[in-house]
Amino acid sequence: MPPAPSIANSVTVRLTLPARATAVSEMTGVIEAAGGVVTGLDVTASGATKIRIDLTMLTHDPEHAETVVEAMRGAEGVEIGRVSDRTFLAHLGGKLSVESKVPIRTRDDLSIIYTPGVARVCTAIVENPADARRLTIKRNTVAVVTDGTAVLGLGDIGPLAALPVMEGKAALFKRFADIDAFPICLDTTDTEEIIRTVKAISPAFAGINLEDISAPRCFEIEARLREELDIPVFHDDQHGTAIVALAALRNALRVVGKRLEDVRLVMSGAGAAGTAILKLFLHAGARHVVVADVDGVVHRGRADVLSGDHPNHAWIAAHTNPDDVTGTLAEALRGADVFLGVSAPDILTEADIASMAPDSVVFAMANPVPEVDPDIAARHAAVVATGRSDFANQINNVLVFPGVFRGLIDSGVSHVDIDVLLAAADALADVVHEDERNATYIIPSVFHPEVSHVVAEAVRAAVAARGDAVAVRGDA
Amino acid sequence: MPPAPSIANSVTVRLTLPARATAVSEMTGVIEAAGGVVTGLDVTASGATKIRIDLTMLTHDPEHAETVVEAMRGAEGVEIGRVSDRTFLAHLGGKLSVESKVPIRTRDDLSIIYTPGVARVCTAIVENPADARRLTIKRNTVAVVTDGTAVLGLGDIGPLAALPVMEGKAALFKRFADIDAFPICLDTTDTEEIIRTVKAISPAFAGINLEDISAPRCFEIEARLREELDIPVFHDDQHGTAIVALAALRNALRVVGKRLEDVRLVMSGAGAAGTAILKLFLHAGARHVVVADVDGVVHRGRADVLSGDHPNHAWIAAHTNPDDVTGTLAEALRGADVFLGVSAPDILTEADIASMAPDSVVFAMANPVPEVDPDIAARHAAVVATGRSDFANQINNVLVFPGVFRGLIDSGVSHVDIDVLLAAADALADVVHEDERNATYIIPSVFHPEVSHVVAEAVRAAVAARGDAVAVRGDA
Repeated sequence: MPPAPSIANSVTVRLTLPARATAVSEMTGVIEAAGGVVTGLDVTASGATKIRIDLTMLTHDPEHAETVVEAMRGAEGVEIGRVSDRTFLAHLGGKLSVESKVPIRTRDDLSIIYTPGVARVCTAIVENPADARRLTIKRNTVAVVTDGTAVLGLGDIGPLAALPVMEGKAALFKRFADIDAFPICLDTTDTEEIIRTVKAISPAFAGINLEDISAPRCFEIEARLREELDIPVFHDDQHGTAIVALAALRNALRVVGKRLEDVRLVMSGAGAAGTAILKLFLHAGARHVVVADVDGVVHRGRADVLSGDHPNHAWIAAHTNPDDVTGTLAEALRGADVFLGVSAPDILTEADIASMAPDSVVFAMANPVPEVDPDIAARHAAVVATGRSDFANQINNVLVFPGVFRGLIDSGVSHVDIDVLLAAADALADVVHEDERNATYIIPSVFHPEVSHVVAEAVRAAVAARGDAVAVRGDA
Repeated sequence: MPPAPSIANSVTVRLTLPARATAVSEMTGVIEAAGGVVTGLDVTASGATKIRIDLTMLTHDPEHAETVVEAMRGAEGVEIGRVSDRTFLAHLGGKLSVESKVPIRTRDDLSIIYTPGVARVCTAIVENPADARRLTIKRNTVAVVTDGTAVLGLGDIGPLAALPVMEGKAALFKRFADIDAFPICLDTTDTEEIIRTVKAISPAFAGINLEDISAPRCFEIEARLREELDIPVFHDDQHGTAIVALAALRNALRVVGKRLEDVRLVMSGAGAAGTAILKLFLHAGARHVVVADVDGVVHRGRADVLSGDHPNHAWIAAHTNPDDVTGTLAEALRGADVFLGVSAPDILTEADIASMAPDSVVFAMANPVPEVDPDIAARHAAVVATGRSDFANQINNVLVFPGVFRGLIDSGVSHVDIDVLLAAADALADVVHEDERNATYIIPSVFHPEVSHVVAEAVRAAVAARGDAVAVRGDA
């Protein structure tokens, strides 16, 4: 499935054309013939014989953009000027700013927010460290921590190249939950060094969002930080994905009239996201689960499980596949009710989907290219979801992490547990009302105004039920 | 010298008074008798027999505020309500926010600033890491790093209690140089661990501002980070103080008509700030310097110098005091032209200042209480400066660090050298024009609109003269 022309590959071309009646339509014809989609056209200057135009168009990818511009260059009488890339323009100079919330206009302002006044605030925190949650940014600040080893579909691109993603994540934290998040891009991939560094920088933060750290290191890093820090630690690639997947599955099963306890569920992918999804599904009541990875179905007799070198695979073998089914993913899929993939592009065929049980559910979440073309899957499955924004039912973590952190920070808890994740998933699922729910609407839009509030409230309630919340919201 | 009633100790008291003609003036009389200074008075509610007032007043310190409120409570017919502390109110919820510079209103916005569009930006940085300076917050972001061991006059209060200061510093970076600065408060005081941590988090930053880290660890930390990082590292307590002190001294010597090369200069304090000031003064041409600390004058025969346990003191002994003068600070001060203290409160008497040469210059920079009362010093010295905002000639780092970092970031240099510091000091001194300069105006106000621009330009020029600057400002 080739990528569609998209806004992410939108370019604006400044060009000069002869001032004759058909020049513009000829040019848009050239662009369309080359596969570009014109979305905007501004005349920015005009003379007796020429007009200057800023033309914006969608393309498939940067190479395609170049091809289209080359085709434009071939048109008669045209002069091509500057070609601007809308995505790069949006990222220029970085996407975050750090702003002062207090005015600094006079010497009195300085005396209050800096020396000598600030000393009294410091002293208050020395006397009662919990006051830092009232009197400093610790009240509302989350670190978005990565080592750049598992960024989007790009893999191990390092901490510097990962920064645009972390900035975007921080921008989403602000937009959807009014949380101040800041990127911490780590120039190390050593597990112990990462743990030490995050612990060292933790005092100013109310929570740690781990991001795009590759498996299996991410498991150890998260587990250790949860043990050793007194603020919540949440690896979004694992738990954010798990929560949104469970919410979507809840509604998909309601649409097809099946129960989580009863369905046969086949998963593809035993990495960070797959494992977290599996654990949450099992906690939510799933009983018939088989997990496959690149080596086929995980079972207790498999070499990597027996060797003890893959504790994660051993855990999966011990908690799934009670009948020790062996074989390929495709074989496991026959007669299954649910497929959930967080693995690799185009690994399933139409026949594979057709072999599933009636009213099957397919979540093909590999990004950017799903495990199976969703249009093809929809010929046989009753409900189809992907991670893509250009199909119905987008499984998107943005639905989860802002609200989860809002709830955790407000509760002032020191740790996250699986009941909190479950509560968040159920609350997210319930944002889709019964009379709205159908095969193309099992999960709300990321811009649904209630989502982060509902998720945050569910987290606060789950924490309150647990009984270890402390009040952190208050005033002087 | 007791602290004056100050804005840093401003409180607002809500109170109810009998509605009779003299009730308000009786109350302000009570406050004045108790030493408070009424600065504002709002009637917030009124009835037939009572009025409610929000009364704001300056006090000396929190204990004094309590004393005054107790005195108010004793007045006839008064009911005291909520007492709010203006400083605490200003710090409530923290002083910084992290904002998104890009709008996130639609799915198209998401596609551009997050997935899938962001992947192309990441890829561009993988291919050309220098592009991170164009396409990410690395362009304009500074880490304000502390371990909380030497905070203001408070000492070792730890990283959490230091956070209000680091937030204030970040707010000043924004206000005076439009730099995005973020507090990194380290939960470790181990030199190697601090170096490792700062290196690990460095990718997202354009510069590192070390802050309030105690000597002698701060020397090693700064030196090693300068060696091992490719972004500028600047310990403001050392070099910011040195730059502003040199700028002020340049103008003070112009006022008294003496030359830096000729004057006899006595310093008190051999810590981080003192050593940095000494080094910059020597580099600027000072030749007759004697340094004293709590053990008296530093000389080559002193035990701590001979022992080799204090490399810093050994350096001072090797580079100052060529005649190996011994004795106390007071002894050294006799006949000296300049005293500069970054040490301890009230260590000099009026007689000590009187013993200096004619037209002497006294910089008593200990904070919050100077080495000598500036009013007393002014009886004998021609020019007096302190670190306090309630006297003329405040030696304040805010004059320096924003412009220095602005210049360093814009130049894209990887290191700071002493010629850059010298250039910044000379430029700052020259902000005070010849026709403005006098004994009470040797250094501009922190709100002087030109200061940070002038300092930044001097840094850029010094770096350009050095020849290793790279262009980092540009657009797509």
